[in-house]
Amino acid sequence: MPVLPHINTPEDLKRFSLPALQELCDELRAFLIDHVSANGGHFSSSLGVVELTVALHYVFNMPADKLVWDVGHQAYPHKLLTGRRERFHTNRLLGGISGFPSMEESEYDAFGTGHSSTSISAILGMASAAKYRGDDTRQHIAVIGDGAMTAGMAFEALNNAGHERPNMLVILNDNDMSIDANTGALQNYLTGLTTDRHYNALKARVKKLLSFNGQQDKWPVEMVRKLEKIVKAGLLHYSNLFEALNIRYFGPVDGHDLKTLMSVLERLKHIPGPKLLHCITEKGKGFAPAMTDKAKWHATGTFDKTTGIRVANATTAMQPVTFQEVFGNTLAELAKKNERIMAVTPAMLSGSALTRMKKEMPERVFDVGITEQHAVTFSAGLAADGLLPFCTIYSTFLQRAYDQLIHDVALQQLNVVFCIDRAGVVGADGPTHHGAFDIAFLRCVPGIIAASPMDLADFRHLLYTAQAGIVSGPFAIRYPRGAGYGTLAGDFEQLPIGTGRKIKEGKDIAILSLGPVGQYAVAACEELEQEGLQIAHYDLRFFKPLDEVLLHEVFQQYTTVITIEDGCIAGGVGSTVMEFMVAHDYHATFKRLGLPDTFATQGTQQELHHLYGYDKEAIVTLIRKLSSNNKHNSKIVSNGMLQHS
Amino acid sequence: MPVLPHINTPEDLKRFSLPALQELCDELRAFLIDHVSANGGHFSSSLGVVELTVALHYVFNMPADKLVWDVGHQAYPHKLLTGRRERFHTNRLLGGISGFPSMEESEYDAFGTGHSSTSISAILGMASAAKYRGDDTRQHIAVIGDGAMTAGMAFEALNNAGHERPNMLVILNDNDMSIDANTGALQNYLTGLTTDRHYNALKARVKKLLSFNGQQDKWPVEMVRKLEKIVKAGLLHYSNLFEALNIRYFGPVDGHDLKTLMSVLERLKHIPGPKLLHCITEKGKGFAPAMTDKAKWHATGTFDKTTGIRVANATTAMQPVTFQEVFGNTLAELAKKNERIMAVTPAMLSGSALTRMKKEMPERVFDVGITEQHAVTFSAGLAADGLLPFCTIYSTFLQRAYDQLIHDVALQQLNVVFCIDRAGVVGADGPTHHGAFDIAFLRCVPGIIAASPMDLADFRHLLYTAQAGIVSGPFAIRYPRGAGYGTLAGDFEQLPIGTGRKIKEGKDIAILSLGPVGQYAVAACEELEQEGLQIAHYDLRFFKPLDEVLLHEVFQQYTTVITIEDGCIAGGVGSTVMEFMVAHDYHATFKRLGLPDTFATQGTQQELHHLYGYDKEAIVTLIRKLSSNNKHNSKIVSNGMLQHS
Repeated sequence: MPVLPHINTPEDLKRFSLPALQELCDELRAFLIDHVSANGGHFSSSLGVVELTVALHYVFNMPADKLVWDVGHQAYPHKLLTGRRERFHTNRLLGGISGFPSMEESEYDAFGTGHSSTSISAILGMASAAKYRGDDTRQHIAVIGDGAMTAGMAFEALNNAGHERPNMLVILNDNDMSIDANTGALQNYLTGLTTDRHYNALKARVKKLLSFNGQQDKWPVEMVRKLEKIVKAGLLHYSNLFEALNIRYFGPVDGHDLKTLMSVLERLKHIPGPKLLHCITEKGKGFAPAMTDKAKWHATGTFDKTTGIRVANATTAMQPVTFQEVFGNTLAELAKKNERIMAVTPAMLSGSALTRMKKEMPERVFDVGITEQHAVTFSAGLAADGLLPFCTIYSTFLQRAYDQLIHDVALQQLNVVFCIDRAGVVGADGPTHHGAFDIAFLRCVPGIIAASPMDLADFRHLLYTAQAGIVSGPFAIRYPRGAGYGTLAGDFEQLPIGTGRKIKEGKDIAILSLGPVGQYAVAACEELEQEGLQIAHYDLRFFKPLDEVLLHEVFQQYTTVITIEDGCIAGGVGSTVMEFMVAHDYHATFKRLGLPDTFATQGTQQELHHLYGYDKEAIVTLIRKLSSNNKHNSKIVSNGMLQHS
Repeated sequence: MPVLPHINTPEDLKRFSLPALQELCDELRAFLIDHVSANGGHFSSSLGVVELTVALHYVFNMPADKLVWDVGHQAYPHKLLTGRRERFHTNRLLGGISGFPSMEESEYDAFGTGHSSTSISAILGMASAAKYRGDDTRQHIAVIGDGAMTAGMAFEALNNAGHERPNMLVILNDNDMSIDANTGALQNYLTGLTTDRHYNALKARVKKLLSFNGQQDKWPVEMVRKLEKIVKAGLLHYSNLFEALNIRYFGPVDGHDLKTLMSVLERLKHIPGPKLLHCITEKGKGFAPAMTDKAKWHATGTFDKTTGIRVANATTAMQPVTFQEVFGNTLAELAKKNERIMAVTPAMLSGSALTRMKKEMPERVFDVGITEQHAVTFSAGLAADGLLPFCTIYSTFLQRAYDQLIHDVALQQLNVVFCIDRAGVVGADGPTHHGAFDIAFLRCVPGIIAASPMDLADFRHLLYTAQAGIVSGPFAIRYPRGAGYGTLAGDFEQLPIGTGRKIKEGKDIAILSLGPVGQYAVAACEELEQEGLQIAHYDLRFFKPLDEVLLHEVFQQYTTVITIEDGCIAGGVGSTVMEFMVAHDYHATFKRLGLPDTFATQGTQQELHHLYGYDKEAIVTLIRKLSSNNKHNSKIVSNGMLQHS
């Protein structure tokens, strides 16, 4: 590679000629394909913005100028050009660089991203700061995809930008895709702008026609008809959404034409106020398999870089069944029998495994775009009219619909089932994406029923129970990303609301678990059994309402209680059990295992469970310590989390 | 009143002639002015939609057809026409009818509202349900103001509606105002649609010009110029935002012309798909003072209905100082000395008392519209660039920006000060607006500093401390609506982060309070002192981090601990203190006072503090009981909340 190895900062770019920069684009693609094929990661989005990234770093002066990548999984080429090439093999690994821009990681990342549609707000903040300081030379750029543009937050920011009018450039990276194919009228609108005839071409033609002033006698009928067509198109279909919001619109430009991009960006530097450049790119550009199946290649595991064939992980050649698969299949199965069931997803159709149901009963699956707020209130509307929506949202994104969950669903006791996917640590996506807080922020919501299954069978039973007609308000089921435990055989069971179950009797010490981390408790109990320690284990299953009968039994029989949960312990399940204990004046030595009060880092789920001290080993270690303490004295035991030990 | 007394359901309307219905509009206005002048309440919005309400109930068949009022404080005429006239004098009072639509209250309220911009999502849900059932006759109407239209959620719903295309009608009630004057480019856009020349008139003129086909020779230069002007206007300025989103646009119509409204609505009934009617109304229509000062008359206390002069409350003729006033004055004072301070508000400029700062330093106050999500990330952008935004949001609305607070501010440890106004119960606005959950949902956020002042002096000290340059991450200060306690004299003090204070020593029993409800504890301690009971009282001040030195002292010295907070007790301050107690293996009889695990009703703040058992009386009663128990035995004390006793 003749160019890439010489680029350590964007400044280095500026010494190269256009042909060398074009060569650099090829090198960046080759580098990305090499690395992602070996290590996995987000992929297609990055391949699509190679030229745009090179052009931005050539034309602008980062980090003095400010550049924000929306969502951020398209920022790999940016990372490669801003000093992170050498560490790129650690991408998304424990201790490695982040898969997203991160202010902590690099001064070139003007704002950290991860969740969608924040970039325009952030860059407007910085541009307004510059305006306040009287700095009218610094440049502010946000790059946002057409998918992210469907979120209301992006609209809020554009509307505000059109009012405040600082110097800023929004680059609409239009690849006709979010993760799944884009939905929503905006998408059709953008397609309208770029197909058939282009908005700018249209403007030019109208101008040309109308400047035909001196020769009115030459206006033939045909031309008038043409004009009519153009005017109507302009008024009705190609009206410019962005200019309506007082944002100057430029484009569309070909996002793979480096030379044009460079000259357009150079010119835009000198145009004051808020402006938008509509840039057409192809997701997966330069890697044929990714250009064909875009959803599949949004993020990927390791693969053969010539054939595109995914490498099966040797240790998991027999793929375990995931919660997602069970969800998709079970919901489709239940929906066949219960015609009130509908599915709602904010742009996570395949991630949430709703593809089967979408295929089998398309009219009952609503992919509403990246719109968590709308998704929940839309579900509330369906429920208010007697249907039973299963609103499927990742835990971390449910934070975006917290008000709607409280104000539109819970307060009105509407029967919406919240399927909270990716609850607990999610792995390589890291701190922006962990589902750490949902237990804490849901358990204070009056009237909600909230549960988490320990195994796949209980997951099916919970989904069944949620639609069995026995509850009238919101019902939340949280479950993690990836593989589940247990078998799927057997009929559906209706689980009594607010009941857990005793997994195992014991002596002195009881573990109360919520969700699949209960399997760690099972394994720990087995290991401790070998050492002669009889540890009790209860699966709480519901964290609201709590199983009070079970808890009375626990606090009456055991002197030491350990809770384990895949979520933050501040305000989490352990905390709610503690509230029960104190309210009923029980006294027990009480330990809570789960995420500590920091933002959890990236790594595999297992690595993180271990790091934060709530895997099998952590339970075993804690119980050995508690038991030896119990034997010798009644000394106060310090908190068992790793960071405290 | 010849008409209104005869209207018990909207069905009754249909027996009247147009002139009688016009008379009804006058009667509705008179009724509203009579009642609101005597009792207070939201006012101007309702006066503005009188004709629209009558027309809607005349043309459509509620409750079979579905009608959702966005925000809902314009729904008074709707309530008067749907069986709630007799109970209207109980509006917003404890035990009375709600100031907002409520599904529980009436079948004519198809969806409860309160928070802004939910109506399009909800009605799209219902319209989609009808489509799923194959019902193409039922009508679905959402009425939304131009202010509410600035929220991203409304855009999300419109975009989705343009894609799903069920039968629904959005009525844009354009009165050029939210509560404060509207900001944002959308507002200019809407004004553009309605002033100068109207969009529809424009379309008509272009059509007329272009159908001038047979006589090309008659096209004079002047006409071509006209045409050019029109085409440019159409393309650049009057392009239709809504039609870009695939929503058919109609209007604008005069929202006070009953006859036209009725005929337009009748015609729209027969047009399938999603459509929007742009309706121009005047806030406060029919009451001169309200038409002049719209912000002042959005909601009002009692007033003289002929002069419009507000009636001073006899018992509070000497108005106590409110937290809001202190906030507005203190922030302006601090901003004069600290040029990094900026203020950000999502459309609550006057409610949050930022009017002074806006007047004195307009370039440092950003009213970003009804956009909580954007407001927080915009603040994060300001902070990322070295400024110090004070982002002022009501507690209940902060629920809308929870993800942005976590993902954009806390995770990146950006120095944003969250001024959480209207924390705790807010009074007459009721369950949609109480700030009940913020302690529970904030205390699980890593790295946040969070406090609540017991008196006005401490409030000033906290605001001072937040900008003193000693913290680098988010700093939240929650404070209630209305009057505060204490004097304002004295210099600013920098409070050490995470420290409370001992208000009073005692024996056996200690009260730990957070926020102004600590004043109830002070009064209770005084009363109990008369009875010979020495009760200790500590003001926690910070709920994150907790004052561990103070808590060790408390749990070492006292055997009974009572916490009191103006928020939900599930996961609240009491819960976090409990976590401390259990983690350090202290044992105390522990009682938590605060909001129980239900949605709190409407009433004055004092009534609600009493109802839910956390006023002075509740404390006194609880402590008497605990003391007598302590004397006689160590019996377990049941929960002291009213609903449990």
